[in-house]
Amino acid sequence: MLFCTIMTVKIPPDMPADQLKAIREAETTLAQEYQRAGKLRHLWRVAGRTANVSLWECVDADDFHATVSALPLFPYLEIDVIPLARHPSALA
Amino acid sequence: MLFCTIMTVKIPPDMPADQLKAIREAETTLAQEYQRAGKLRHLWRVAGRTANVSLWECVDADDFHATVSALPLFPYLEIDVIPLARHPSALA
Amino acid sequence: MLFCTIMTVKIPPDMPADQLKAIREAETTLAQEYQRAGKLRHLWRVAGRTANVSLWECVDADDFHATVSALPLFPYLEIDVIPLARHPSALA
Amino acid sequence: MLFCTIMTVKIPPDMPADQLKAIREAETTLAQEYQRAGKLRHLWRVAGRTANVSLWECVDADDFHATVSALPLFPYLEIDVIPLARHPSALA
Amino acid sequence: MLFCTIMTVKIPPDMPADQLKAIREAETTLAQEYQRAGKLRHLWRVAGRTANVSLWECVDADDFHATVSALPLFPYLEIDVIPLARHPSALA
Amino acid sequence: MLFCTIMTVKIPPDMPADQLKAIREAETTLAQEYQRAGKLRHLWRVAGRTANVSLWECVDADDFHATVSALPLFPYLEIDVIPLARHPSALA
Amino acid sequence: MLFCTIMTVKIPPDMPADQLKAIREAETTLAQEYQRAGKLRHLWRVAGRTANVSLWECVDADDFHATVSALPLFPYLEIDVIPLARHPSALA
Amino acid sequence: MLFCTIMTVKIPPDMPADQLKAIREAETTLAQEYQRAGKLRHLWRVAGRTANVSLWECVDADDFHATVSALPLFPYLEIDVIPLARHPSALA
Amino acid sequence: MLFCTIMTVKIPPDMPADQLKAIREAETTLAQEYQRAGKLRHLWRVAGRTANVSLWECVDADDFHATVSALPLFPYLEIDVIPLARHPSALA
Amino acid sequence: MLFCTIMTVKIPPDMPADQLKAIREAETTLAQEYQRAGKLRHLWRVAGRTANVSLWECVDADDFHATVSALPLFPYLEIDVIPLARHPSALA
Repeated sequence: MLFCTIMTVKIPPDMPADQLKAIREAETTLAQEYQRAGKLRHLWRVAGRTANVSLWECVDADDFHATVSALPLFPYLEIDVIPLARHPSALA
Repeated sequence: MLFCTIMTVKIPPDMPADQLKAIREAETTLAQEYQRAGKLRHLWRVAGRTANVSLWECVDADDFHATVSALPLFPYLEIDVIPLARHPSALA
Repeated sequence: MLFCTIMTVKIPPDMPADQLKAIREAETTLAQEYQRAGKLRHLWRVAGRTANVSLWECVDADDFHATVSALPLFPYLEIDVIPLARHPSALA
Repeated sequence: MLFCTIMTVKIPPDMPADQLKAIREAETTLAQEYQRAGKLRHLWRVAGRTANVSLWECVDADDFHATVSALPLFPYLEIDVIPLARHPSALA
Repeated sequence: MLFCTIMTVKIPPDMPADQLKAIREAETTLAQEYQRAGKLRHLWRVAGRTANVSLWECVDADDFHATVSALPLFPYLEIDVIPLARHPSALA
Repeated sequence: MLFCTIMTVKIPPDMPADQLKAIREAETTLAQEYQRAGKLRHLWRVAGRTANVSLWECVDADDFHATVSALPLFPYLEIDVIPLARHPSALA
Repeated sequence: MLFCTIMTVKIPPDMPADQLKAIREAETTLAQEYQRAGKLRHLWRVAGRTANVSLWECVDADDFHATVSALPLFPYLEIDVIPLARHPSALA
Repeated sequence: MLFCTIMTVKIPPDMPADQLKAIREAETTLAQEYQRAGKLRHLWRVAGRTANVSLWECVDADDFHATVSALPLFPYLEIDVIPLARHPSALA
Repeated sequence: MLFCTIMTVKIPPDMPADQLKAIREAETTLAQEYQRAGKLRHLWRVAGRTANVSLWECVDADDFHATVSALPLFPYLEIDVIPLARHPSALA
Repeated sequence: MLFCTIMTVKIPPDMPADQLKAIREAETTLAQEYQRAGKLRHLWRVAGRTANVSLWECVDADDFHATVSALPLFPYLEIDVIPLARHPSALA
């Protein structure tokens, strides 16, 4: 099943720089692992903002929640979740 | 350049059924033409709502506006537009 | 998969009374059919408002969208959709 | 009487990890006690977010408030409360 | 049980004057009947707006919904519902 | 003159427990004094939330502001203020 | 007592031109009468919008509501009401 | 003085096509006249929406309001107005 | 030119009491200086809230911004700005 | 391609004064460099608020994001992004 998320990153302004760096690196590592595994099918930056648009393919909502909530940045994300269905005009 | 749109369809409740049918058919025709031309790369239904999430690849904002505003449903759409950039953690 | 919906009914004020009556009766018929089929597991009235809270069990998002969009009142509903996962503290 | 709540958890980012762990464990204990007592009839995770949808059966609003405000996470929750009535199309 | 409602009246601008007059008179009649029966304990005008603040005492949410939805103006009301509990600092 | 307020309490999560306790006790004392003096005619808890609905009877807006801003919790309250007029359908 | 209002005019797009003209003329007449009577102390246009900021001096909320609701445009206004008190730093 | 406006066009869906065409032509004529006169310094389309971002140079707020409210589309516009001052980091 | 502002004061809860006192005193001093100079023509308290409605008469937007941003409380204010024009029905 | 941004500056109230000063100076330096390079075509202050309206000319969304996210104030900005297309009524 497909889920679209719009994630806005809200880092506390007093987070130490090295902690932030470690979180970001772990985030990149896991995000790329998810892409290689086919779970994170698309990942785009929202131009001009600390936010992204992501497209997830998961078995179901439990799998989706486990996947997203494992992200190191998860405690600092505001997330809009849009469950997706097939569109009747979509060719593929 | 990539644009993500979230389009909510707001059909006036007193639109005649045949007019609505004609608009929907023309919409499908053009949406599929856009997909074949590579302009509309993804088209998903928002589950449970008369809305969609679309991903557009256009030359620039002028091309994007011309493309979207040509949709037969355009006068009846509420559209959120998100310009997309490459995400540093994206593999492809 | 489970979906929670909060549906607010927005009937156009100039809808003829007999048309509204017919829609409501068809809505009740289908809502009860969905309940007997196990698709609509819960249906509650939001006290004091023309709205409801519903709990849907569907195969996936495509099934959910097909189910909800078949409701006779669907064109007149504002719908919030919340995809649900299992809660780690839930007993059942 | 039935109440539906949508609770979003907002943990202060500087809460010590052991304090958070203790609160979460106490929360789980009480949530499960409420389920066994029949007060918390349903508890679902909002997929992709630190939030839940809950269904409470209480004697009245006083009982409901006492029940919810006793949750260890209560000071950190943003709560939408929806009082529920029987829906005329509900079978059970 | 007590419910506080904030009701905003939204009359369609093309409603015939005599229909509006009939609805308002029936509304007043029922509102006063509810007051005499002790169901509508308080009714205030929001100063400067076509809105009111009301306080309802009902057996439960079913009774409350039946009471409010019987108002002739109900189809034209936007209603915020606040279920009330006893406040620990309240004297009476 | 009557004012309805909806007050949501927002305590900073790092406020020391004894300071919070002292503020709450002083709040209760003053709220009860206001009730005895006839200034705070009603005080209800919003079920399920750290909020209240209050009804104030004051000489005028200056008196109302002086009364409310003297509350020990005032710096921690988000307050919606609704000035009330007599409703033409109110019996008393 | 002083009230500040921010009024946005929402004329139905299908109102006949002569009806609109008659309402506007009656509105001007009454607004100027209110100014001469000292009830409407200030009336400003919100630059660039069909809206105004007004300052009313009335005996109390009942008087204020009677005054504002008598405006011919009242059924077509969205009104924010701000009850005003004396500011401790105000010289006059 | 400079004003930035964000104007969203809301055409009633039942406006006759020739009336809409006439309004649009008159709108274009006046918008270009304003540009030649130096009053409308910039006019951009919001990509993907029936909206524009405009920059106005007017003598003062009265001149600005007279200029904008003379637009044939004015009754159908939702307008956000942002008064602009010189930015200390601006070179020109 | 006239500007109306609605300013809501948001003091950080951990600001030391003497710092807050000094800021408030400096705020009062400057607010009264502005009133004597004719720049701040009206200053009212929003009843029941830590907010005010103010009316400013300035040469232009640059002068207005310099005036308002010099307020000692400026870093702690949420400000809505409404540029004002003459209303055609205003007598004075 | 052109982007309009509305940026609101949210400085944490406990940021040391010298750190804020250093950030502001670096911000001014880069903003002026962007202006000289033709990337930041316009920069205006929103009158009365710690916000600005900016107009950016960039190669594409990647270039735009790299440009904006390099601003020293970027972590403290709330940014609305409006991608711009040519308006059919624009002369230049």
